[in-house]
Amino acid sequence: MINVGIVGGTGYTGVELLRILAQHPKAKLKVITSRQEAGTGVDDLFSSLRGQITLKFSDPLKVDFGKCDVVFFATPNGIAMQQVSALLGSGIKVIDLSADFRIKDVAEWEEWYGMSHTAPELVAEAVYGLPEVNREKIRNARLIANPGCYPTAVQLGFIPLIEAGAVDENHLIADTKSGVSGAGRKAEIHTLYAEASDNFKSYAVAGHRHLPEIRQGLSERSGKPIDLTFVPHLTPMIRGIHATLYARLTRDVDLQALYESRYANEPFVDVLPAGSHPETRSVRGSNFCRIAVHRPRNGDTAVILSVTDNLVKGAAGQAVQNMNIMYGLPEKMGIQHIPLLP
Amino acid sequence: MINVGIVGGTGYTGVELLRILAQHPKAKLKVITSRQEAGTGVDDLFSSLRGQITLKFSDPLKVDFGKCDVVFFATPNGIAMQQVSALLGSGIKVIDLSADFRIKDVAEWEEWYGMSHTAPELVAEAVYGLPEVNREKIRNARLIANPGCYPTAVQLGFIPLIEAGAVDENHLIADTKSGVSGAGRKAEIHTLYAEASDNFKSYAVAGHRHLPEIRQGLSERSGKPIDLTFVPHLTPMIRGIHATLYARLTRDVDLQALYESRYANEPFVDVLPAGSHPETRSVRGSNFCRIAVHRPRNGDTAVILSVTDNLVKGAAGQAVQNMNIMYGLPEKMGIQHIPLLP
Amino acid sequence: MINVGIVGGTGYTGVELLRILAQHPKAKLKVITSRQEAGTGVDDLFSSLRGQITLKFSDPLKVDFGKCDVVFFATPNGIAMQQVSALLGSGIKVIDLSADFRIKDVAEWEEWYGMSHTAPELVAEAVYGLPEVNREKIRNARLIANPGCYPTAVQLGFIPLIEAGAVDENHLIADTKSGVSGAGRKAEIHTLYAEASDNFKSYAVAGHRHLPEIRQGLSERSGKPIDLTFVPHLTPMIRGIHATLYARLTRDVDLQALYESRYANEPFVDVLPAGSHPETRSVRGSNFCRIAVHRPRNGDTAVILSVTDNLVKGAAGQAVQNMNIMYGLPEKMGIQHIPLLP
Amino acid sequence: MINVGIVGGTGYTGVELLRILAQHPKAKLKVITSRQEAGTGVDDLFSSLRGQITLKFSDPLKVDFGKCDVVFFATPNGIAMQQVSALLGSGIKVIDLSADFRIKDVAEWEEWYGMSHTAPELVAEAVYGLPEVNREKIRNARLIANPGCYPTAVQLGFIPLIEAGAVDENHLIADTKSGVSGAGRKAEIHTLYAEASDNFKSYAVAGHRHLPEIRQGLSERSGKPIDLTFVPHLTPMIRGIHATLYARLTRDVDLQALYESRYANEPFVDVLPAGSHPETRSVRGSNFCRIAVHRPRNGDTAVILSVTDNLVKGAAGQAVQNMNIMYGLPEKMGIQHIPLLP
Repeated sequence: MINVGIVGGTGYTGVELLRILAQHPKAKLKVITSRQEAGTGVDDLFSSLRGQITLKFSDPLKVDFGKCDVVFFATPNGIAMQQVSALLGSGIKVIDLSADFRIKDVAEWEEWYGMSHTAPELVAEAVYGLPEVNREKIRNARLIANPGCYPTAVQLGFIPLIEAGAVDENHLIADTKSGVSGAGRKAEIHTLYAEASDNFKSYAVAGHRHLPEIRQGLSERSGKPIDLTFVPHLTPMIRGIHATLYARLTRDVDLQALYESRYANEPFVDVLPAGSHPETRSVRGSNFCRIAVHRPRNGDTAVILSVTDNLVKGAAGQAVQNMNIMYGLPEKMGIQHIPLLP
Repeated sequence: MINVGIVGGTGYTGVELLRILAQHPKAKLKVITSRQEAGTGVDDLFSSLRGQITLKFSDPLKVDFGKCDVVFFATPNGIAMQQVSALLGSGIKVIDLSADFRIKDVAEWEEWYGMSHTAPELVAEAVYGLPEVNREKIRNARLIANPGCYPTAVQLGFIPLIEAGAVDENHLIADTKSGVSGAGRKAEIHTLYAEASDNFKSYAVAGHRHLPEIRQGLSERSGKPIDLTFVPHLTPMIRGIHATLYARLTRDVDLQALYESRYANEPFVDVLPAGSHPETRSVRGSNFCRIAVHRPRNGDTAVILSVTDNLVKGAAGQAVQNMNIMYGLPEKMGIQHIPLLP
Repeated sequence: MINVGIVGGTGYTGVELLRILAQHPKAKLKVITSRQEAGTGVDDLFSSLRGQITLKFSDPLKVDFGKCDVVFFATPNGIAMQQVSALLGSGIKVIDLSADFRIKDVAEWEEWYGMSHTAPELVAEAVYGLPEVNREKIRNARLIANPGCYPTAVQLGFIPLIEAGAVDENHLIADTKSGVSGAGRKAEIHTLYAEASDNFKSYAVAGHRHLPEIRQGLSERSGKPIDLTFVPHLTPMIRGIHATLYARLTRDVDLQALYESRYANEPFVDVLPAGSHPETRSVRGSNFCRIAVHRPRNGDTAVILSVTDNLVKGAAGQAVQNMNIMYGLPEKMGIQHIPLLP
Repeated sequence: MINVGIVGGTGYTGVELLRILAQHPKAKLKVITSRQEAGTGVDDLFSSLRGQITLKFSDPLKVDFGKCDVVFFATPNGIAMQQVSALLGSGIKVIDLSADFRIKDVAEWEEWYGMSHTAPELVAEAVYGLPEVNREKIRNARLIANPGCYPTAVQLGFIPLIEAGAVDENHLIADTKSGVSGAGRKAEIHTLYAEASDNFKSYAVAGHRHLPEIRQGLSERSGKPIDLTFVPHLTPMIRGIHATLYARLTRDVDLQALYESRYANEPFVDVLPAGSHPETRSVRGSNFCRIAVHRPRNGDTAVILSVTDNLVKGAAGQAVQNMNIMYGLPEKMGIQHIPLLP
């Protein structure tokens, strides 16, 4: 059994980690921390977990992770970077679901995240936890930078085209739509039900923190710098990301064959039949990314549709997928939930 | 392994049965029928099942259930009663999720359902599949009448009080709220998104088909005829039933202790701590019924709050729970999904 | 023209007052205050008002209401009671949409609202602004206590039966459902989209602040103390209240005729034809209360269904209706919006 | 007073026309037809209209439009083209909200709409009713082809850039999102609440009927053929369209100034301040189109955000705007509703 700790388990990625780990055959949840909820039973805060988890939240200042093999950080940005070094020093592996170790260029990270990085020496070591790209590196990693929700859906959508060198890499467009849980479990006005329901809007068109992460990932695939226009939208649904991706083709390519081939052996990427329109509910509560490819009226614009559950493949599920890889377990173990439809 | 057939698998209870059975350790789905979708792959209709189920829908007129041990009917009312006799005659057990065998008084059934019953001789034999009441009978049953969604939530909420003989049995009130999936996957105007969203209304106040079913169940518990006022409401959510139950107490009773005691050994009924307000999402996608009991300002009116997922404990999950009991399997096998929250 | 001021215009009742008053033929909005948004343009905060209102929010500590004839308070409880006396002293009338002057028994108010009342001498003078009951008193009032949202829907539903003396007044039940805007525009976790969407729950079953207000109003109608069980529920919709009311009849009564007669001359109470089920969207954005009456299977339990828009007839619309009455204007002036459907 | 008839008043554009016309100071509704609802009171079908409209639906085969000055068609495609000629011959003007007269190239229309056009001779005469482009022609028109919902939002978003000749006209992208009411009030499975709620998907990526309409309109503005990629999405909200438009700039241009200047005198197009993100609820129930313009990181990609209410500016509101222009009324008369927020 792998002994697991969670730092910051009261947000949506936290409760999703709990849902998944509570039934993972090889994981044993040992400790979970929360500043605000220390002493509260996990199932008092989340009644969905009654009968599943008997742990109480621990005070993060008093907690001992000594019995843990791996610790997940489901914390706001800027927390993990302060604590990871000590854990690694104790031989404990870390999977960070925040953004602290995702961007290799520390100066760029500091600019986008508006704070100084306190562990720049670990940034280079951290492995970006997108198994479809970095599976081998993940296997031996001590520190995983778990990808952001938008970057997962967008990269999985663009990667085959980028790797094939078949598109104009300076004019990619990612028009993305996220459910409201992507904003986290924070008391804020703009994500209130009465604000976000029956409403649709874009945000952060001038620049979103996931943009440098996507650029970095796609540039690595390309071998040269890529650029893209990234427009996120807030959608009146709880979970789900729908990325509608546009790329100008620079040569003729069989999109369907290209995508099916690239993801033939990927357990969690599902290329739909030609002509399909994936819907977010088809992955609700599951670790799948479903992708469909189109080339309207046979023109030079490819349209790629990529859907994920932002809390699973876009966060907690992918984190457990990384854990499975790190510990040599079957990659699908404990994350084979069938999507909840309707 | 138990070989399973499903008749009518294209509705919401059908796809929910598929979700559950696809991962049940002891069930093997052999055949599924649909008039309209014969020949279509199950996963073509429900993309959430891609990679899980490779069956195609069979034509119900040509299907052979010979290899099945048990057949589930997820059909409109009036279908199962025509086919059950032949299946039972072949030694195949039946779990009927429709209403055909729920009401023991055939004349009353015919009045509420507006058709003649074609298998009245089987009505007496059929066991009403509410395990919390009929577990022993279910064990040996050939034919299960799986309870309706409202009746499950309402009966589980009232049963402890009725059995304790502590209430005025002629003035029970059940104010119930259901998600829109309770209306089924039928093309109708009143359940369109643009009609049912951002809207709340009651329906069938003059009389709803689940009323005689509830009356029958509670009268059996009581030993005398009970009466209740039953008002269902359509709620803008996909899944979930919330029953708010009112009963006038005829003697002093410790509600909390009464309910905890009654359901102490029930794997799927969860009595919440005193003062709780269960929410429907706390059971979303799961087989739980969560109940809280209140006695406002210590008056003589008890308020019982009971929530279920109408498609799971209110339909497909309870059907599989019955199957587990019928075949001597652990009662929780394959239906231990943790609710999806948020 | 009536010169109008608004204290606290950044909540949902505030923006709804703005929407209504901006097009009221006889009202001229002179000043609107907000602590947090002082200096911000009203239409910068609420883009729906662009081109309609050019005022900026004023600092409440520096504001001068000298040019106003009437001031609306759309503030949290406890604010109006501190400021009303000075305004009345300057000859300015006040319509308070908060709860400060609704309860005549000051001790009871203090118990339910958890603070000391700073203007108890004005409580007696304040007129409870339910026009269907107090129209004549409203005409000459200086200070209106505008009713709460639940109390409006529940009282309008029960009043005909209470006035007719036809029910058991000790066992009334009000099972009420409110859209999430009823909780206000406050940054709180339980009203986030990802918490309140696709979910249904009750709250405050042990006791809600609107209970004493309803009891007071109905007891006045009855002439003796009445008691009721009041259970509010949070419903995944933006606007709307649906009150499902249960009363035991103590004598035979023609419910339909009783209600039609009682409200025959009321411009904003609409008694639906027998057998109807009012839906909340049928009053969305309008000042109507629509009511239907039922007596299931001709038993002794009356079921009354009453729907309103909590922000209009339950708050801002009723406040303007009161203003119209106070100033001798046609009662319907400026509040004749047709409900937005779908 | 203008005497008005409506053909096909039971859909969402029909009921929206009724809501608007019922309070229009210069319109008098004389007759409304419906095949299915002939004889039913308009307010029996739409309880939101109780007290507003006393007409009954007339049988379209027996109806006499002789007293009408203008007739609105809110019918499925293919109906208006059969009836318009007779009406025009009787001196009655027609505003067609369906697609029958929108496309000047009859062959192209027949291809996209899958039927033969029965009144090709009227296609040339019909004026495309987008006032921001065709105001003068509308003034003298007998027959208005009222624009589609997507085409209105997309054209208003692109027009300033196209007219300025500042973009690559062969690679425009319109990523559009519509509320579910855009699919009409038809009994279909894919728009059921339980299908469309908490879900997001694209549709018709291979080709949507609004594509040729947009191409035609923009090409007229440009003077040369333009091409665009058009991807519509179904969004879990009732009303609203959000068009996210991408264009590659071919020369430097001050987007904000360009748009403000182009729409300076337009009563229903609102260009938001630089940096804004319009939300669909900011136009809910109103005839406004709100637009914001962006140029992320000062690159060569312009991002234009355009929102409308699909049933108002995208249908019924624009139709009444056209009527106002045709009859020399103030253009804003009767369509100045303030958006309903929240």
